[in-house]
Amino acid sequence: MKALKERVYEANMELVRKNLIVYTWGNVSEVDRAKGVVAIKPSGVPYEALTPDQIVILSLEDGRVVEGNLRPSSDAPTHLVLYRAFRDIGGITHTHSSYATSWAQAGRALPCFGTTHADSFYGEVPCTRWMSEEEIERDYEGETGKVIVQAFEGKQPIHVPGVLVRGHGPFTWGKDAAQSVYNAVVLEETAKMALNTLIINPGVQPLPQALQDKHFLRKHGPNAYYGQK
Amino acid sequence: MKALKERVYEANMELVRKNLIVYTWGNVSEVDRAKGVVAIKPSGVPYEALTPDQIVILSLEDGRVVEGNLRPSSDAPTHLVLYRAFRDIGGITHTHSSYATSWAQAGRALPCFGTTHADSFYGEVPCTRWMSEEEIERDYEGETGKVIVQAFEGKQPIHVPGVLVRGHGPFTWGKDAAQSVYNAVVLEETAKMALNTLIINPGVQPLPQALQDKHFLRKHGPNAYYGQK
Amino acid sequence: MKALKERVYEANMELVRKNLIVYTWGNVSEVDRAKGVVAIKPSGVPYEALTPDQIVILSLEDGRVVEGNLRPSSDAPTHLVLYRAFRDIGGITHTHSSYATSWAQAGRALPCFGTTHADSFYGEVPCTRWMSEEEIERDYEGETGKVIVQAFEGKQPIHVPGVLVRGHGPFTWGKDAAQSVYNAVVLEETAKMALNTLIINPGVQPLPQALQDKHFLRKHGPNAYYGQK
Amino acid sequence: MKALKERVYEANMELVRKNLIVYTWGNVSEVDRAKGVVAIKPSGVPYEALTPDQIVILSLEDGRVVEGNLRPSSDAPTHLVLYRAFRDIGGITHTHSSYATSWAQAGRALPCFGTTHADSFYGEVPCTRWMSEEEIERDYEGETGKVIVQAFEGKQPIHVPGVLVRGHGPFTWGKDAAQSVYNAVVLEETAKMALNTLIINPGVQPLPQALQDKHFLRKHGPNAYYGQK
Repeated sequence: MKALKERVYEANMELVRKNLIVYTWGNVSEVDRAKGVVAIKPSGVPYEALTPDQIVILSLEDGRVVEGNLRPSSDAPTHLVLYRAFRDIGGITHTHSSYATSWAQAGRALPCFGTTHADSFYGEVPCTRWMSEEEIERDYEGETGKVIVQAFEGKQPIHVPGVLVRGHGPFTWGKDAAQSVYNAVVLEETAKMALNTLIINPGVQPLPQALQDKHFLRKHGPNAYYGQK
Repeated sequence: MKALKERVYEANMELVRKNLIVYTWGNVSEVDRAKGVVAIKPSGVPYEALTPDQIVILSLEDGRVVEGNLRPSSDAPTHLVLYRAFRDIGGITHTHSSYATSWAQAGRALPCFGTTHADSFYGEVPCTRWMSEEEIERDYEGETGKVIVQAFEGKQPIHVPGVLVRGHGPFTWGKDAAQSVYNAVVLEETAKMALNTLIINPGVQPLPQALQDKHFLRKHGPNAYYGQK
Repeated sequence: MKALKERVYEANMELVRKNLIVYTWGNVSEVDRAKGVVAIKPSGVPYEALTPDQIVILSLEDGRVVEGNLRPSSDAPTHLVLYRAFRDIGGITHTHSSYATSWAQAGRALPCFGTTHADSFYGEVPCTRWMSEEEIERDYEGETGKVIVQAFEGKQPIHVPGVLVRGHGPFTWGKDAAQSVYNAVVLEETAKMALNTLIINPGVQPLPQALQDKHFLRKHGPNAYYGQK
Repeated sequence: MKALKERVYEANMELVRKNLIVYTWGNVSEVDRAKGVVAIKPSGVPYEALTPDQIVILSLEDGRVVEGNLRPSSDAPTHLVLYRAFRDIGGITHTHSSYATSWAQAGRALPCFGTTHADSFYGEVPCTRWMSEEEIERDYEGETGKVIVQAFEGKQPIHVPGVLVRGHGPFTWGKDAAQSVYNAVVLEETAKMALNTLIINPGVQPLPQALQDKHFLRKHGPNAYYGQK
């Protein structure tokens, strides 16, 4: 558990270093599927005061606290729903980063306008539907997870490692906590560039499919050739 | 008085650390209602030269200087009007922060486009009406307080802890000086995201009321469940 | 001369600290009217390598180098024309700061949309006309000074301490080098807010005249009451 | 080779200091035409871990690795095509810098709206055409070089030291690695100002030709008079 907590602590602090965090708005978690636990940031603790041993350990199955004296992030139920539904992801990041949140507030999926996007996200980043009043009342954070899962029907979560929760902000994921943070940074940068692209050319079309295929596949999958072996 | 001055000094310096201040544009105050005094930044003193003992103590009742050798902020009369009219607030912040000021200059209330806004401000942040020439001549800073109070007729100031003074800039408040600074940071970030939201989707509608209720109430009031107990 | 060079050096370095400079794009000067000299940054010297003794001293009357081993800024002839025409200014700053330059490139005077602008600039900041091919060929930098002077016919340069040179960028001035830098920072911040104001409300009108009068006059002239006595 | 590697290392690190790099997105190279080699950043190595001896040396003629244990940047084939076609350039920089990439994604050449642009780029910065599916499949990075070369038919690469690769991002060049980085910074700043210029005045026209000539020629060519001799 110690190494898991350290990794989750480090991933949370990396969010701060990448300037994606204002006050306590954001949280990172990682799952250990063999042990059936999820490690997540405690609720409302300032990042500058955060320590590895404050990271809360939850049961993946029922969400109860297995280890730790603090309450988990209020978004923990969303994380749990995603880990249960998306079996090949290992880490999740939630932020209110400025540009990605602006797209979420605008209620628009983020189109793939360039290769920076295509290098990490295969196709547009979907935006969830509005939740009903009943869903909001019943189990708000859990239902947030469910509308995300719904938005991925027919999609591979590991190929489109993020989503815009309508009116709220982005969630991203990856094989572990660190990679989910990486994808949060990419999503923010991509959201900024997409906004500026729209201003320069309001009629801009998405990147041709052949280029999307090329960029995603040169970094992902069996034929990847980017980076060192 | 020493602790009060220290708190007001710290809150003013926090504004600088949060990058909301250019030169001397901005000021923070806190009221001690038991003692009937308000502590506020002196006028035109550079933040880098500010010390806790330079904080000026004013009478809440009549505004005269009770303690201190420097003139109070020229905006002090606005603060005093607000403390007298809004009985449940304890601290006030005024800035010319870039995005909130742009909304004030545009003369538009800041709509609630997302949960980041709803977490701290319950509904839109109002924009005051233009002041008449007579009001400007008579007692400019005091009248500024009065048009703010007018903009809150029928609203709870503690639920909407900020305002845009038309053509001028934002004032925010809270239970103490520190919380008024927190709300100034939230307002600036929210104002930036609202501008970008409008660019992405010019026809965007405010966040559904059920979501506004949910987010404000999970952080405020008797049923709040965000953060540690 | 030593104190003059030190002040001009400090003012140049302050531009860097305020993030208005990319590479060597920008320069600050100050005039000593009693001695009939102007001190200015040398041309093309990187700010990180600049020292006070590299500041070049020019004759106000004919522009020749009075002291110093380096060439003066290529914009020196513009500074000289302004010092000769505007008798009550003591320092000049030129930058390519991002937002002010964007307004200059757009060929639009910067309207007074708010009190931040009115606190330092009384009315709109004018934009010069295009120079003719003949003017460009004849004495480009000197003619740049002349179109600025032309843009101020009927205006008080000390009340509107800056200009946008069309297609080029801003010049600002003040009673000394330091104040011209202050006004360069205000102009950049004001230009940024004006752009965002236009996006939020494309039909926005300038600040009412009574407010412009109030703000400029509470900081300037015999009845000023901002700051310490 | 040691000095060449050092220069290329330094130029890569300067990109980071100028805030043009997110993660590993970007690379700088320099050619030694006498020795027939190109030095380039290795693929996917984080900048904070980069050392001079990791710089990879390639044959200019056939692209094979002459020295170094790491794979070269995946964009190396693009660099090689450019060095072979543009005989008077000595260094190349590729980034995904935010504003230049936004223009590339918008598929629009960057117009010359001001003297900041004209000081370094003589005329608009072209945007390449889309590549065909066949070109993408055949030799993506090499073909990227070819569409750049095509975009410069009838242009002097050394007078317009950069290009926007459609849907991807900018490449810039110069007499050596350091100057290609300088031009990458200028292009990013110019792309930002051009975007803001368009917002302020959607009907803005390019800088008059006489001004473009004046600014480019006072910094470049036999009659240059900017900077120290």
